[in-house]
Amino acid sequence: MLETQDKTAEAVSETIMSNSYAAQNASSGLAPFSFERKAPGPHDVQIEIKYCGVCHTDIHFVRNDWGMSIYPLVPGHEIVGVVTNVGTHVKKYKEGDLVGVGCLVDSCRVCDNCNEGLQQYCLNGMVLTYSVIAKDGKTVTMGGYSNNIVVDQDFVLKVSDKLPLHAVAPLLCAGITTYSPLRKWKIGKGHKIGIVGLGGLGHMAVKFAVSFGAEVTVLSTSPAKKEDAIRLGAHKFVVTKDEEQVQKVAGSFDFVIDTISSAHDYNLYINMLKTDGTIICLGAPPEPAQVAMFGLLFQRRMVAGSLIGGIPETQEMLDYCAEHNITSDVEVIDMKDINGAYQRMEKSDVKYRFVIDMATL
Amino acid sequence: MLETQDKTAEAVSETIMSNSYAAQNASSGLAPFSFERKAPGPHDVQIEIKYCGVCHTDIHFVRNDWGMSIYPLVPGHEIVGVVTNVGTHVKKYKEGDLVGVGCLVDSCRVCDNCNEGLQQYCLNGMVLTYSVIAKDGKTVTMGGYSNNIVVDQDFVLKVSDKLPLHAVAPLLCAGITTYSPLRKWKIGKGHKIGIVGLGGLGHMAVKFAVSFGAEVTVLSTSPAKKEDAIRLGAHKFVVTKDEEQVQKVAGSFDFVIDTISSAHDYNLYINMLKTDGTIICLGAPPEPAQVAMFGLLFQRRMVAGSLIGGIPETQEMLDYCAEHNITSDVEVIDMKDINGAYQRMEKSDVKYRFVIDMATL
Repeated sequence: MLETQDKTAEAVSETIMSNSYAAQNASSGLAPFSFERKAPGPHDVQIEIKYCGVCHTDIHFVRNDWGMSIYPLVPGHEIVGVVTNVGTHVKKYKEGDLVGVGCLVDSCRVCDNCNEGLQQYCLNGMVLTYSVIAKDGKTVTMGGYSNNIVVDQDFVLKVSDKLPLHAVAPLLCAGITTYSPLRKWKIGKGHKIGIVGLGGLGHMAVKFAVSFGAEVTVLSTSPAKKEDAIRLGAHKFVVTKDEEQVQKVAGSFDFVIDTISSAHDYNLYINMLKTDGTIICLGAPPEPAQVAMFGLLFQRRMVAGSLIGGIPETQEMLDYCAEHNITSDVEVIDMKDINGAYQRMEKSDVKYRFVIDMATL
Repeated sequence: MLETQDKTAEAVSETIMSNSYAAQNASSGLAPFSFERKAPGPHDVQIEIKYCGVCHTDIHFVRNDWGMSIYPLVPGHEIVGVVTNVGTHVKKYKEGDLVGVGCLVDSCRVCDNCNEGLQQYCLNGMVLTYSVIAKDGKTVTMGGYSNNIVVDQDFVLKVSDKLPLHAVAPLLCAGITTYSPLRKWKIGKGHKIGIVGLGGLGHMAVKFAVSFGAEVTVLSTSPAKKEDAIRLGAHKFVVTKDEEQVQKVAGSFDFVIDTISSAHDYNLYINMLKTDGTIICLGAPPEPAQVAMFGLLFQRRMVAGSLIGGIPETQEMLDYCAEHNITSDVEVIDMKDINGAYQRMEKSDVKYRFVIDMATL
């Protein structure tokens, strides 16, 4: 695969060298790896990566949990850095600009969804930032656990210098994934919302929902998270293992934002919704959700899914964060510590996002 | 239970005799049964029942499938008849009026949902037309497989004399159950909708959706239903066992109305929805629905439930039907044939609703 790729790259354009951490197969873990990327074409931006956030999706891909991984695999889709080179037709960016790249690096650009800026729902298939075949039909995308990346200008985001760059990185996935449904469902003043799970996504959902004026209750199995939930801005906290506390919030929320991506009981949260309430699910457990239909029918409730956000909305989110001083709570790590970080993430031992300092690569 | 009930009735008010078909336990089937109802109070309307539709819910209750049946049990909640007596405070109805009674005969009348006319979602518990304890805390409600019924005027509907009365009966449940979600989600011109299942509910969903201007596709496992679907007004028909036909409608519907109340594959229909599409479920299988979250996340789709309709909307639906000449397709049966009718319903051998002629009781 790689050999073919390299030959082709030599044939059609120059390449640039990338240093990275990659998985060689589903059980290898991550280790140093060098490869060649296509040099920037006329519409591309070359970025020196400064920080890259570590998302649960990275773990799923490294371990091939979803059966779609392509190896060698360089994860990472919460990328911030500095422009070092631009193609001849690039008008939006210049050398030295602070920029970001999220989960998407391309889409068909002609379907109804792309035309509406909903590239994440591209009807002809979006191109993820890593481990998929690009629109050229041959290049495998390689992500942000790397010293550089080359991306079409239309999928590059402007990043403000007002915020600490390392704390901006997770906005590119955890941020937009929570911002987008809150905006889509117009959640704000006058709404009571529950947020399930206080992790990378959950802590951003709390910050945004509070900023938008909603009354926010964090729903968690772990009483230990209460103090932090309140510190992050949540108004209330419910321990979901406590039957009495659960009963008290039955039928009380306009919306529940469910950030859990492992198997869990959806009906517990559905029953916390008011009439016409909606639970918005952001995680995709490997097994189907078990939804008791009576819980939906008897109060005309809804279960919805939402996936990251489109490019214009991601830019809107980044601008909103710069204006309102919102960033992710992060723990910066060295590149060499990534395998240990994955282990800690599996025990939910991170507040709330690991971010790799690429200077340590 | 009954003995207590009779004594109480004697103590506080007069009673009227009712002849009916009732189930004595979960395996008895239905047989003749006489009992006393409370005579109409000041706000009540006494109705001589002319026809009563036969709903799948009746079978579930007779057999105690949902574990909530109270015996002796007189089913029936698709009731049409003539007013024979009214209480002193009844202003809305007079002797001789054609009226209907649906799934509800009472609710708290003070909660937010009751105030909005959404009595079916009463936050203090609606009172079903049969097999539940009434708001007095002791009377067990008895349904429409009966020669008469006494209902508060606020839960009685006006029925037009423009339509054949026997074909109006199923509108009180099958009609409003499909009309309500179509109105709630404003389904009409410009929408492509799929309707799953062509039974009592499904055939009404087709009639209403076509009448509201939507492009309607019936989705059925049975190719034999195509001709009838088209006769009822559907524009297209998809055999859901045919992989090729299923592929053709992937991502094509704004809404799917799912009328199936037995276990089935929801994901098949979820994948037929466009971006932001909604599958509205009207049936509640005993087992939880298995919903693959990827199907919701990747196109921001929704799963919703909807339950019958409130009293004002039920009246609106009956008026709409009178104006647009919409009724249910029915097979009128004698009361004594009810057990056989249940057997035929379980084989989907009815087009599309049995209606009992109460003159045969």
